[in-house]
Amino acid sequence: MKEKKTRLDGLFNPRSAAVFGASDNPAKLGFYVMSSLNGCGFKGPVYPINPGQREVMGRSAYPDLEQIPGPVDLVVVCVPGRNLPDIIKQCSAKGVKGLVVISSGFGEIDDPSGAGLQTEITDLANRAGLPMVGPNTFGFVNAHLALNATFCPEFLQAEAPRAGFPGHVALVSQSGGVAGIVVNRAYQENVRLSKVIGLGNRCNLDFPDLLEYLDQDETTRVICLYIEGLDRPGRLLESARGRSKPVIAYKAGQWARSDQASKSHTGTMAGRHEIYQGLFRQLGFVAVNSCEELLDTAKALSLAAKPLGRAVAVLSAQAGPALAASDVLEAGGLTIPAFSGSTKKTIEELLPPLSLRSNPVDLAFAWYNLDLTQKIVEALVQDPGIGSIMFMAVYGSANIGVVKTVTPVLLDAARVKPVVTCLSAPFGLWDQDIAVLEQGGVPNYPTPERAALALANMVNYYC
Amino acid sequence: MKEKKTRLDGLFNPRSAAVFGASDNPAKLGFYVMSSLNGCGFKGPVYPINPGQREVMGRSAYPDLEQIPGPVDLVVVCVPGRNLPDIIKQCSAKGVKGLVVISSGFGEIDDPSGAGLQTEITDLANRAGLPMVGPNTFGFVNAHLALNATFCPEFLQAEAPRAGFPGHVALVSQSGGVAGIVVNRAYQENVRLSKVIGLGNRCNLDFPDLLEYLDQDETTRVICLYIEGLDRPGRLLESARGRSKPVIAYKAGQWARSDQASKSHTGTMAGRHEIYQGLFRQLGFVAVNSCEELLDTAKALSLAAKPLGRAVAVLSAQAGPALAASDVLEAGGLTIPAFSGSTKKTIEELLPPLSLRSNPVDLAFAWYNLDLTQKIVEALVQDPGIGSIMFMAVYGSANIGVVKTVTPVLLDAARVKPVVTCLSAPFGLWDQDIAVLEQGGVPNYPTPERAALALANMVNYYC
Repeated sequence: MKEKKTRLDGLFNPRSAAVFGASDNPAKLGFYVMSSLNGCGFKGPVYPINPGQREVMGRSAYPDLEQIPGPVDLVVVCVPGRNLPDIIKQCSAKGVKGLVVISSGFGEIDDPSGAGLQTEITDLANRAGLPMVGPNTFGFVNAHLALNATFCPEFLQAEAPRAGFPGHVALVSQSGGVAGIVVNRAYQENVRLSKVIGLGNRCNLDFPDLLEYLDQDETTRVICLYIEGLDRPGRLLESARGRSKPVIAYKAGQWARSDQASKSHTGTMAGRHEIYQGLFRQLGFVAVNSCEELLDTAKALSLAAKPLGRAVAVLSAQAGPALAASDVLEAGGLTIPAFSGSTKKTIEELLPPLSLRSNPVDLAFAWYNLDLTQKIVEALVQDPGIGSIMFMAVYGSANIGVVKTVTPVLLDAARVKPVVTCLSAPFGLWDQDIAVLEQGGVPNYPTPERAALALANMVNYYC
Repeated sequence: MKEKKTRLDGLFNPRSAAVFGASDNPAKLGFYVMSSLNGCGFKGPVYPINPGQREVMGRSAYPDLEQIPGPVDLVVVCVPGRNLPDIIKQCSAKGVKGLVVISSGFGEIDDPSGAGLQTEITDLANRAGLPMVGPNTFGFVNAHLALNATFCPEFLQAEAPRAGFPGHVALVSQSGGVAGIVVNRAYQENVRLSKVIGLGNRCNLDFPDLLEYLDQDETTRVICLYIEGLDRPGRLLESARGRSKPVIAYKAGQWARSDQASKSHTGTMAGRHEIYQGLFRQLGFVAVNSCEELLDTAKALSLAAKPLGRAVAVLSAQAGPALAASDVLEAGGLTIPAFSGSTKKTIEELLPPLSLRSNPVDLAFAWYNLDLTQKIVEALVQDPGIGSIMFMAVYGSANIGVVKTVTPVLLDAARVKPVVTCLSAPFGLWDQDIAVLEQGGVPNYPTPERAALALANMVNYYC
């Protein structure tokens, strides 16, 4: 495993990069790859390779790899596939550490020439010991290095509110489209990513390789996989052995038509849904059913403390959201036990008999008294029978001050056990405060059901 | 029914309003109610009533209703409940048309005095023929009148991007918390609302009354109900007879703990989940399981044309999202049939044999050729075997121009059959264009699964 990490380190942590097909022409993918590598903050030199140009984006262009004066760690390819055999030979001669092949026209097309070319470049890359992402991929992002080796400059937007990078959630995707949706949504939902990798045709780097690498990657806490089909499940089983980080797996193609479409798309048999679900169970993966559940679960697993059991305390300033959340928690196999012992005693002393004092707890009475809320949360933190806490409140300008004062109480509690919140605010009213909560380890969700499902998935992973 | 509509028209379309408990003090709810009525664009006069003040928010304050010089249609009450009997008598004498009682301390508390007071004011309001929202409610919003009769000024934010008001989705909620979450989320998800009504303790106005009213309300196309428990399901059955608009019902409290909590919260038995699901089926309601599904389904039903059958054509610029969507469509009982006849012929002529040409269709090849995409969409529009169209594309700056050109094609198709999209863009890149699509009747969703579920719910309602 150690060796594997070292092998892929040069690919994912390069000190320099070169682009075959770099272009000033916005009609070419090479334009966007150059924009991504140049414009997102990557510190190393980026060399354009284009025999027809003397300069690209104000930088000297080179006819080939050999002519580049300094060492090149990463090579990104946007030129037609037939050039790949020569490019791989150049990479080998230059001591390149990793290759990203964005070009398509390989195994994913029905034409046998594509498959033949794919076999050829796979053999060449394997013999050269050259890790290769793709072909037929959007590339990869290493957010902690501000390295965007894709044709999507927007994958690393520093200026976006609650900017999605860098963080501790890694995504490995068999689909560029799904990766795009997940990254776009991650910005909106404040899920912070460490690495995003598009596998493409998986000739030389596949799920097991990435799983091994990311399990040792210091910047990654949670690994997300979007899977359409696996060729050798046995390899995945092997690579997942001894794994230490949570893995979330989203497998599409469970129904007839999508299964058929998947086969055409990736050149592999998607296979029966049940087989994959069994495999994920065996591997201890968290299986999810949508892009949103993938992100929501990743957020909880990357931010919150480990739960201490299946029992959840549900606190809500309004009763309705507590009902909605309880439905999802109980459907997910978690329990919402009546309080006992000193917790019961404390809460009964603090809240009047008229209010809902067991579990869920209606905080309406305690709402304008921070001291009461704090004491209730502290009692729950100290109760060994409570594994995690869910806290919900809906507010507007009338009660925003109260919610702000609760933040430190929740942050304190989150150091001991998971605190998952659904704090719902009108547009623009509280975005920055939610960011403070999440930076402190309290994942927040816009609806009670999504908060509850993320918590249930997290508890089911650990307990 | 006609009579009922006329009776509630004065409540929901008042020409003037007065507030018992109006205040300049931001620690009082009466401050926020005045801010809501004054600050959101309502054209009629708003009279503060507060015997201790000569002015509130720069307007002359009155000691009681009688002293107000002009007629008063709507009265909002934020003073303690014991004043209600006198206030209702004042309303009756003044010819008030509707009452909103925000005050709590009635049937929702365990103290018998609360229940007694509730019976008293219900009798008084009933005898006076005075429609009363509440008590124990946040109030209501009539977006088309810019009337915000709640303590949440943010419920009507003109300045929010893709501002959620006014629109054609009405929400009737048994929970203020859930209503807040839904309204907050509606802004973010561009679901435009017509009316939002908090039922509170439902003494005098309940689900059946609102259902009858909203079914005839010209500004409402889709009615959403958040239900915790019903006292007399028979009345709902009766009111739903002859109904013409889609109703979406979200019933919380299906599990043990939440059911128990619901009982305490609303003073009613939430009852068995299955009974409610059976009732909704009998009523032809669309049953949903989360706040998000409620909004997503409402968006589809309020914007898109009626589907012409259960068969869906799935078009996607990337294969992965098509797989994810197909899973949800098929699980929802929709079909994704292989194309036949002239559609098959047209698409096979347009796309090369290497691409996925049946259903789903991979548009990768047609992506940079608007003419091809247009011809494919037109063939599907004309195919009587296709009931609706799902269109997906993920884009960044590299292909944003292409997506923009597709917009008119989709808008044209949406006049004939439902077109539901998952167009996913990086943060900030395409928000305005998505708004154009939605204004033209094409609901867009951030993930393929949510788009597919909304479409499935819509098709299951109509077909």
